[in-house]
Amino acid sequence: MEHFLRNRWYQYGFSHELADTPLTRTIIDMPLVAFRTNTDVSILLDMCPHRFAPLSTGRVDDGRIICGYHGLAFDGAGHCAANPHGKITTALRVRSFPAVERHGALWVWMGEAALADPALIPDLSFIDETPGTARIHFTIAIRASYRLVTDNLLDLSHADYLHPDTLGGVMTGVRPTVIDTDNGVAVEWENRNVVPPPRFRERVPATQRANAWTRAEWQAPAIMLIKTALTQSGRDRSREDEVWALHSMTPESAGSTHYFVCGTRRDRMDDVEYSARLRAMLQHAFEQEDKPMLEDQQRRIGMADPDSLRPILLSIDAGAALARRKLNRLIAQEQVADA
Amino acid sequence: MEHFLRNRWYQYGFSHELADTPLTRTIIDMPLVAFRTNTDVSILLDMCPHRFAPLSTGRVDDGRIICGYHGLAFDGAGHCAANPHGKITTALRVRSFPAVERHGALWVWMGEAALADPALIPDLSFIDETPGTARIHFTIAIRASYRLVTDNLLDLSHADYLHPDTLGGVMTGVRPTVIDTDNGVAVEWENRNVVPPPRFRERVPATQRANAWTRAEWQAPAIMLIKTALTQSGRDRSREDEVWALHSMTPESAGSTHYFVCGTRRDRMDDVEYSARLRAMLQHAFEQEDKPMLEDQQRRIGMADPDSLRPILLSIDAGAALARRKLNRLIAQEQVADA
Amino acid sequence: MEHFLRNRWYQYGFSHELADTPLTRTIIDMPLVAFRTNTDVSILLDMCPHRFAPLSTGRVDDGRIICGYHGLAFDGAGHCAANPHGKITTALRVRSFPAVERHGALWVWMGEAALADPALIPDLSFIDETPGTARIHFTIAIRASYRLVTDNLLDLSHADYLHPDTLGGVMTGVRPTVIDTDNGVAVEWENRNVVPPPRFRERVPATQRANAWTRAEWQAPAIMLIKTALTQSGRDRSREDEVWALHSMTPESAGSTHYFVCGTRRDRMDDVEYSARLRAMLQHAFEQEDKPMLEDQQRRIGMADPDSLRPILLSIDAGAALARRKLNRLIAQEQVADA
Repeated sequence: MEHFLRNRWYQYGFSHELADTPLTRTIIDMPLVAFRTNTDVSILLDMCPHRFAPLSTGRVDDGRIICGYHGLAFDGAGHCAANPHGKITTALRVRSFPAVERHGALWVWMGEAALADPALIPDLSFIDETPGTARIHFTIAIRASYRLVTDNLLDLSHADYLHPDTLGGVMTGVRPTVIDTDNGVAVEWENRNVVPPPRFRERVPATQRANAWTRAEWQAPAIMLIKTALTQSGRDRSREDEVWALHSMTPESAGSTHYFVCGTRRDRMDDVEYSARLRAMLQHAFEQEDKPMLEDQQRRIGMADPDSLRPILLSIDAGAALARRKLNRLIAQEQVADA
Repeated sequence: MEHFLRNRWYQYGFSHELADTPLTRTIIDMPLVAFRTNTDVSILLDMCPHRFAPLSTGRVDDGRIICGYHGLAFDGAGHCAANPHGKITTALRVRSFPAVERHGALWVWMGEAALADPALIPDLSFIDETPGTARIHFTIAIRASYRLVTDNLLDLSHADYLHPDTLGGVMTGVRPTVIDTDNGVAVEWENRNVVPPPRFRERVPATQRANAWTRAEWQAPAIMLIKTALTQSGRDRSREDEVWALHSMTPESAGSTHYFVCGTRRDRMDDVEYSARLRAMLQHAFEQEDKPMLEDQQRRIGMADPDSLRPILLSIDAGAALARRKLNRLIAQEQVADA
Repeated sequence: MEHFLRNRWYQYGFSHELADTPLTRTIIDMPLVAFRTNTDVSILLDMCPHRFAPLSTGRVDDGRIICGYHGLAFDGAGHCAANPHGKITTALRVRSFPAVERHGALWVWMGEAALADPALIPDLSFIDETPGTARIHFTIAIRASYRLVTDNLLDLSHADYLHPDTLGGVMTGVRPTVIDTDNGVAVEWENRNVVPPPRFRERVPATQRANAWTRAEWQAPAIMLIKTALTQSGRDRSREDEVWALHSMTPESAGSTHYFVCGTRRDRMDDVEYSARLRAMLQHAFEQEDKPMLEDQQRRIGMADPDSLRPILLSIDAGAALARRKLNRLIAQEQVADA
């Protein structure tokens, strides 16, 4: 059985995914339900303690979630707030999970509640600083381990082969720089005088040459920030050129992942048609190319630990290998602490 | 592995489901086939002893079922009646299960054949006494344990939450009377001066008040008779007011159930359009509300014994809890007798 | 776990199934990919040694297969031929399986490569001698063991019951002759003065009587040649009357089979409309009748060894039983040799 890092914040979803109706998601094999209370967001085990019906099949009323089977109501802390059939006992309680809404996203803490410090949520203020018209969101269900999704993003050379019509063409031949950061791993690629990939051709036309820069920053367990810039050759890169994107790989189970992406840009920030074009392009790359490849990989690997199958590592895998070692060490430490 | 009560009659289906072609059903993990012989109904293991082909893929001719693979014919007792390829040996025999057609239904005995006394079939003569125009039948496949379906019906307070647009609104707040009967458990609800639920509004308009009475009678392993009446406030209840319905929960496997319902009424007995309206209403309740809820519950519970998950029982669960204890005791007794 | 005969040629597919794009097939639980090199056919494990992506999701270029994930190229022997990210090491190698193209089919050797002698491929030169216009091909996926498909073909009496509208009507009552051949088992049926089955009515009209002759030749592990002839009563049978068909049952897994059929005839050899009519007729028999029956059988048997369920064997099973004993002996010998 695979162990996961539990005392961390995992992205549960995006804020805009949770409106008036409850939002269910299974995280690390736990069926959960999120709903809005009057002041906050709550995440509970999606299972009524009475007869095990999913609370999510009920409705939310005045900040309480009401089971659709026999009408028991629970507040955001999981305490029974109404029992139409008798007394409220302390046993009528649902497990609640620490939940925070920040940076346009919902975060859940899967470990010991006492350790759930919101300060540990990664700083993604670049999302807050970007108007909605310049953001692109994806929520993609992938039937593959979050580890394979992470590996995919820490070795972006795959873009040249898997995404030749959108993002690829500027990675192969560049030796990535791998940086052991305080709280994770960063990998950086820089390539000069390249043909601009289609994704950037509205900024640098295909007839010109460009400098390509990408930096992927990972932190445990499964959060990445990917920064990309393509600038016309000869021009210096500024922050305005940079496209920053959050990539969250929240494990649903050992073999499936909720993959959340929030891309932001600094150019033509109110051009929603440009956003729509970019979104369609990236959707093709993520849903039609990455997702099937990751699922194919997972099918080949089955439920084995990929490392046990002794993959032949290449130089391009250095970043992913370092991140994996760090993650394994953190998980082992948590297991020891729990024992 | 779950144990079932075997020396009992289980409902195999309704009479009208079995015409000229064989009717297959898996009961307690046994693939079975029913067919009509010249005088009777037969139920055999649906597996030819020659090459294990399902007999049901063949055809019935002159009261024999003929395997579609190599033409072996078997009579209603499971003995080979024709072998086009050679001699009939005593080994050419299919296991047969005691079968009876009664009360518009087919019954099968899943235990020791010598004990299969038709007198043990529950008395459902109310079905025979009701013309077909005043009967409503359902055969619903539910991917949940027959125990969950039973619990659902022994705590009808769920109607107020799960079926608000059809049956609900008259249960909550009524303390049910639980009766330990000779051969099972009965639960009774009585409520006065209620708004008539939609199901009964053609008898008592929504503008008036009514008295609601419901009695659910369970007997092991999985037969229930539910009697309901709604009468205008101030008027006494007569047998003509009562709606009687058979609810059979035949286990297909540990996690799936054949749910059979036969509802009967005494008013407007030849009004087939009224029957059709009632049928549509109940179909919505049973197939669109009960079935998904029961399957959701089962998914949460998985293959665990629900009791092992320590549900928090409420007062409304008293009837279901008593029935469960009785059923468990009967199963344990049968296991001891078998040992 | 089921053991298979490994040091044998299995049919991988038909030549016409493999064009410019790779052809994937799982054989005995091994995911494989076939592709054409400049001179030959190659079959590799369909899994890149780098990150376990299926090579088949890539493309073939100049006789090499290029992984679609990171661009590694492998030649027909499974050696890395190009690594865009660095050096080619000897570890960058994919397992290759001996492969031969012969008799319009692709053959793969699933055992020890040193033993892979193409002379062991069954002689099917009748296929080469038949023009394409007089051949009929089928590739049918069957979710049943190759052993059940073999049994099906070694007892062709089933045609009378399962294929009454195409092939049946001439088997029942004929005692088949079972011949223990050098390298397998042959079963022969001969019947005189029969009504021609629909399949042959363009040769002998239904109003006339015919002699029917069929010979099924099996060799381990899963190759059969079925020869049939229907001649007008009173006329001698010549080679021109005979319809010869290859039936290959290549195990995909313990419970699923790639069933390949190549039928040939000697009459009206350039009549492609006749071919189309025959094809439609046989497709109905194989895909709508045999396949569901075999899958039904398999569902009843589950993952048990059919012999362990003690089937009641009839005289018609003599050929299949002998073939099964021979196959089991060969498998046991191979297991001993491997130990």
